Order: sequence, then structure tokens, then C-alpha cells
Amino acid sequence: MPISRFSWEPLYYKMSIRIRQLRAHSIAIADPPLRSSYGLHAPYALRTIVELESDDGIVGISEAHGGDAIAHGFERLRPRIEGADPYLLTGALLPMIEEDPTGTSFDRSQTYYVPGENPLDEAARLYSAIEIACLDLIGKTVGKPTCDLLGGRVRSEVPFSAYPFYKHAGGGGEGSDARRDEYGEALTPEAMVRQVRQMFDRYGFKEVKFKAGVLDPDAEIETVRQFRRAFGPEVPIRMDPNCAWSVETSVRVGRELREELGGGGYLEDPTAEITGMAEVRRRLLDTGIATPLASNVAVTSFADIRESVRQNAVQVVLCDPHYWGGLRQVQHLGKVCRTFGLGLSMHSNSHLGVSLMAMAHAAAATPHLSYACDTHYPWQSEEDEVIAGGRVPILNGCVRISDRPGLGVELDQDKLAKGRERYAQCKYRKRDDEAEMRKHVDPNWRRMLPRW
Amino acid sequence: MPISRFSWEPLYYKMSIRIRQLRAHSIAIADPPLRSSYGLHAPYALRTIVELESDDGIVGISEAHGGDAIAHGFERLRPRIEGADPYLLTGALLPMIEEDPTGTSFDRSQTYYVPGENPLDEAARLYSAIEIACLDLIGKTVGKPTCDLLGGRVRSEVPFSAYPFYKHAGGGGEGSDARRDEYGEALTPEAMVRQVRQMFDRYGFKEVKFKAGVLDPDAEIETVRQFRRAFGPEVPIRMDPNCAWSVETSVRVGRELREELGGGGYLEDPTAEITGMAEVRRRLLDTGIATPLASNVAVTSFADIRESVRQNAVQVVLCDPHYWGGLRQVQHLGKVCRTFGLGLSMHSNSHLGVSLMAMAHAAAATPHLSYACDTHYPWQSEEDEVIAGGRVPILNGCVRISDRPGLGVELDQDKLAKGRERYAQCKYRKRDDEAEMRKHVDPNWRRMLPRW
Repeated sequence: MPISRFSWEPLYYKMSIRIRQLRAHSIAIADPPLRSSYGLHAPYALRTIVELESDDGIVGISEAHGGDAIAHGFERLRPRIEGADPYLLTGALLPMIEEDPTGTSFDRSQTYYVPGENPLDEAARLYSAIEIACLDLIGKTVGKPTCDLLGGRVRSEVPFSAYPFYKHAGGGGEGSDARRDEYGEALTPEAMVRQVRQMFDRYGFKEVKFKAGVLDPDAEIETVRQFRRAFGPEVPIRMDPNCAWSVETSVRVGRELREELGGGGYLEDPTAEITGMAEVRRRLLDTGIATPLASNVAVTSFADIRESVRQNAVQVVLCDPHYWGGLRQVQHLGKVCRTFGLGLSMHSNSHLGVSLMAMAHAAAATPHLSYACDTHYPWQSEEDEVIAGGRVPILNGCVRISDRPGLGVELDQDKLAKGRERYAQCKYRKRDDEAEMRKHVDPNWRRMLPRW
Repeated sequence: MPISRFSWEPLYYKMSIRIRQLRAHSIAIADPPLRSSYGLHAPYALRTIVELESDDGIVGISEAHGGDAIAHGFERLRPRIEGADPYLLTGALLPMIEEDPTGTSFDRSQTYYVPGENPLDEAARLYSAIEIACLDLIGKTVGKPTCDLLGGRVRSEVPFSAYPFYKHAGGGGEGSDARRDEYGEALTPEAMVRQVRQMFDRYGFKEVKFKAGVLDPDAEIETVRQFRRAFGPEVPIRMDPNCAWSVETSVRVGRELREELGGGGYLEDPTAEITGMAEVRRRLLDTGIATPLASNVAVTSFADIRESVRQNAVQVVLCDPHYWGGLRQVQHLGKVCRTFGLGLSMHSNSHLGVSLMAMAHAAAATPHLSYACDTHYPWQSEEDEVIAGGRVPILNGCVRISDRPGLGVELDQDKLAKGRERYAQCKYRKRDDEAEMRKHVDPNWRRMLPRW
């Protein structure tokens, strides 16, 4: 028998969701002294934890980069968020990110900003935090995992990579709040192999994303070679010097590591700008080297992709739901990349478990994402985690998407309060790896592109 | 106070949705003798109405093209659909459409098929019907409009266009089942103007999509000019001869109608194939004519877009959730088009109100869709409509997206049963406009490309 018209109406009214309150918590988490071409990580990384509480008392959460700028961003949006229906809010706010400044003279790349400090993707970063919290709130209200609100998972086990960094001694934090240095100093190829082995043993990772651009290129080439010798050709290696090299150096490294970065790996942002990447690609192809070039610096928005395709500059785009405007935009990006024959990988910054789950759900709902995702998660400490029940397990290199609603995690309010205290007590208000480098390593240091 | 962990669980179990039964109804609906370059519409158009009924007795619906082939397609999928969770089903079936045959030697265009009969998009058409019914079922279960499950509407009023066709006398249907001929014969420019005026008066449309490729190009040029004179330059005109013309003729028409098709209009598929379209575009640009070329024949899948962009063949892609794999794929397509500077419009085939609402929800959830959508809806009769409460109103040229859950419409089971009877009694089992043309107009007629 057909159901009568409007038979769902009682359910309809019951299921109405209204956001009663936005809470944005600025927190600080200990971060070890990791090196990159940007400089040195400060003893604390800054994050923001967002809570959207509905009239039913259900709370949707997300995690974004930190500092005062984004906190002000949430305050500006508060009147639009509080009282809104989360199903509609993401559509209502879409113009924030839909109108990207294509065709303007803005430098949209991250070349001269540390990630999270590029004013031109500020809107996408804000939008993303709201979208993810809405999708968590909706999921927790209707009892469905977030990825299944997005068309349904295409995988339940999301692979992540070991993410070795050259680092100084220290586990992050300051004074009596210093963390144990789990990995120790790593400024030689041997120490880097040890670091990766430690991550493999603990998390079961099966791929390596290697943060380069720190030592002389020959030392970094040697590091990659030692990775290959230690872990064998079945472990793909991705190398990311964050634009530290000239075109000439990029081509030389690409040639010397043709074997090691082939076979499932890639060379990420060896040099700056789309034109630079295109020239590297051309010169590598001219000598028969097809190692893909990936980017999270030359290509950081939809507006960059068209020109990159035109010049064949970048063959793999790095998505990150935090920077590309959320989970749905990552799905769109996947289709854009698939349509134009580009690979899709995922970028990461220092983060806690809420971000890890958002990244895992993005990956679960994006068929074209075919590399193990980047994650900084192993660099953070249990002590700093804010989710209830402790850190998200990574088993066999994978985060499992369970049947738990939303992102599958909730906040531990005591741990969150500790993160807020840490933020109040530390002196950092935005990421500045160059300043840290001058303070701790070399008073005259500045980021030079290309350095080599 | 923070809510306790798992506080949503009672809701969670209550909200579990399981598809108890798939019902796919092959129906026939009266269709007037409309002409196009494909030939002549038969007295009945074939559609399929899909119902997915959940354990709760809630029914999600969709509408697809008709005939026996798709009915068999649903039977093949029945074991995967019945018992499935609609949130997960669309992800589980995604490989059906994700693995499009890029790089194969298939001719994926619609050039030599009538829409709905291209074997290469059969999977996308099947998937689309399932996805839309799942999104309707989910919407009706959680009390949310379908577009708001997709990120939230960006518009609530979706504009459609008048869709004039050259036609013979007759309102569709056969014998005692013949419909009143609301619009009369229209084989001259004057009759076409009358037809458009009638549609404008009744529905409030503000744009014209003109099905050409039927008469000599000079007669069709004159028709467009009379549209312009009758309705003024504020009414954009889009002209679609479905590949009936050579490159030479396409360029000539583009030049002669540079004023009339500019200003918000376009020339759709004047000639066949991406290379043909690219040549027309090049030659028009060479004489300073920027009228965009649109396509639903040269570009019918994501796999075609890359080559089209490379050759600058098509500047506006016509989406249609029925052919592109559903509502989410249309959203992806919107982003692909935006990223590559292409416009996005929407195609239509003979359809009833369920399809109209699916198209409206797709448009409501796709910011980049910036033309008034095509629709054949005015060509169908109240008598053939299967939705409860009668035909969907089109006011001021727009379909309104209300707050009603899902697609916002339900089936009238009696009207549906009549559609099934009509299907059982008529002799049509697939669309064949060429056969109809031979039967009623010219026994030797065949589709020739180019005809002029």
C-alpha cells in the first residue's frame, strides 16, 4: 500500500536542526622542532577546535589551524552561524569560497606564506571548519558517518604515510611543559631511516612522505637512497622540499632519484611557481623521466589548476580539506583531477585527532584519492589530544572509518580546557617558522627561494 | 555541560534506513509530434518511475528514460539495491560510473544515438536513477529537501526556458488516447513565435531554447530573428540544431545571428564532433564573434571535457543529472566547468514532474549553473503526470524549491498505474525518431550529418 502524502511530517518537524551555539576554542599543542624550507616549527602549534551545538544538545566538531586571525574570523561569522540550520548553512556561506579571485593579480600560491597564513585562502579555511562541523553535527543527529552523508564511502580503511622530518632534539613544548622526545634528533640520512623505521613499527605505514629542502640536496638525495635501501622498492617515496631548489637543482635531483621517486612516488614542489614546475617537468620528460611532480604550493586553489594544466606543470594535486574549503570541495577536486588526468594526494599540517578524522572521511568519500595521505599526527603527543578516549588508532598504516556517526569522535572537555590554557600561557599567536629559526639556529636565517 | 558520549545512540538506531523493495515502473506518456535533427517524436515517450521503499515504509522516487533496456538494468541491480542502506548504496555503486572509458576507442558522443539510447552512458543513467531515489528517500526520512542534503541550496527559484520545437499537428497519444493539441502545428517562423508566446504566457519563461536542425538554415535564421523582434534583446536565445550542419553552415549561421545568439544565448551543437566544434569556434573568433558554443552531443561525459578544453571546442557544457550520473556528478561537473572557465547549462528530454524536480534540485545545489534550464515539461499533459496533486507549477518561469522533504513530490499510484497500462498497450520499447519520421513524413528519411 502506498504511504499517504505527508506521512513523514511528524518526523520532519522532529528532525529540524538549529545551531544554538558556536564555540571556537583557540588551543596550543606541543610540537617538536621540525625543520623544513620554511624554517623551524615553534615549541607549540596553534589549532582551533570548533563546536556547533544544536537545539537538541548534539555537538558537531571540527579542527582548524590556530591563532588569533581565524578566531576573529569565527566571531565575524557568528551571527550567520547561530540560529542556522546546518543543512542550509554550508550553501548559504558557499559564496565565501565560490568567488575565488580568478584572473586577478593576486599571488595565490603558498610560496611566501607558511600554510595557514596565506590571506588568500583564509575564507576557504574558515568555511572548511564550519562545513566539517556541520557535517559532523548532521551525522551525529541522523546517526550516520560523515563520509556516508557525502555519497557513501568508497573505502573504510584510509591509508596514511610516514612523514619523516629533519629535526633537532626535543619533543615540543617549553619548560616544565616539555614533551618527551620520542624520535630524537635527526639531521643525517641514518637518523632519518631510524625515524621512519620507528614510525613504521608503531603505525604500520607503508609509504614515505619525506620533508626535504633542509640540508644540501646531495645529503637529501642520500637520505632518499637510504630509505630505498632500508625499506625496498615496494615502499613508495614522495619527496617535498617546498620550493627550496632552482629549476636546475630540481632537474638534477629528479634525474638522480629517477628510480627512487618513480613507482608510486613523486617529487613535490621542488621549485616555486607554475612556470618553474613546468620547466622542471619538461626537462625531466626530455630525458625520459616521468616522475610526477606534485604540488601544494604552486597549485593551492581551483583557480590555479587551469594554468597548471595548460603548462603541464603539476601532475598530482595535493588536496587538504582544511585549505580547499572542506570535504565537498575535495570531492569536486577529485573529479577535476580525474577529468584532467591528474593524480590526487592529501597534504597535512600539525594536527590532532579531529582533523585526522576529517581527512580520513574526505579520503573515504573521494574515489580518485589514490596515494596514502600525509599526516603530522605521529608528531603530536597523547597529552595534547583533545578527543575523548585518547588518540585515534592508526593500524597497518590506516585509519578505520567505523559506523559511528559524524566524524566518529567527540571532545574531552578537560583536555580541551588544557589546550586553551596552553594557548593562554604560550606567546605564539601565528605560525612563524622563520622567526623560530633565527631564535634557535641562526640569527641571520631567512627563507631563500631557491636556496640551492 | 558537554553531552555524554553516545548520547545520540537511541536516535542512531531509530534512523537506520534499509531499502526493503525496489520497484521500477515502465510507463508511456503521450508526446506531441516534435521534430529535431533526430527525426520525429513518437506518439508516446517512454519513462521509468523508480520507487525505493524503506523498512519504515517511506518511499524515495526518481524518473529515468524508458524502455526495456533500462528495466533490465534495474533487474540486474536489484540484488545490490534491496537490503542496502541508501546512504551507502550510492558509494558502493560508484565504480559503475567512476571508471569511464577514458582513452579507449569508444565513440562516447551522442552523435549517432538519440539521447537515452547511447550504450556508453547506460551505466550513468541507471546510477542516476538510483542516486536520485536514494536522495529522495533520505530526504523524506530525515525531513530535508534533497538539495539541502547536497551542501544546501544556493537558490530556491530555479529558472527554466521555453523550449519551442517545430512540430506537426497533434498533441500526442494515439486513437482514443490522443491528447488535445495545445500548441498546434508549427513549421513556420510565425507559428514558432506564437508557440513561444503561448509558453511565455502560461509559464512566465524569460529565455528561449530553440530546437533547430529541422528546416533549411535560412528558415531557422529567420525564426530566430522573429523571436528577437517579438521578445526583444532582453530574452536570451539558445539555438540547438543537434549537429545538423557542416562547419561551413555553422559558421555562416553563427555570423548571421551574432547579435541574436549573443547576450546570454549560445549556439549548441551546430556540427558534430569535438574537432568540428573547435573549427567552428576558431572561425567565429577569427571574425570577432564570441557567441559561445554549447554541447550535449560532442561532450557528454567527463571523459570528453579534457579534449574539448584542449581544442577550445565547447564553451558551455550541458549537464543533465539523468545522463551525467546524478545530482552529485552535476555538482562535480559545475566545479570542473568553473575551474576551466566553461559555462554550465542543463539539458532535458521528454519528462514528467519527478524528473523536473530532480533537475530543479540539481540546479538549486549547483552554484555554477547560470543559464535557465531546458525543459520539455510544457510538452507533456496533465493527464500523463504521475505525481500526486497534479503537475508541478512553473511560475514566472521558475520551479520553486520548497521546504518539503526529498524532491518535494510523491506518486499518485492511480496515475502511475495508467502510465503502466499505456506502456503495456503501446508498441514502443525504445526511442527511434528516425522510424517515426519514415512512418509519418518521408518513407526514405534518414538522419544525415551534416544535412546542410
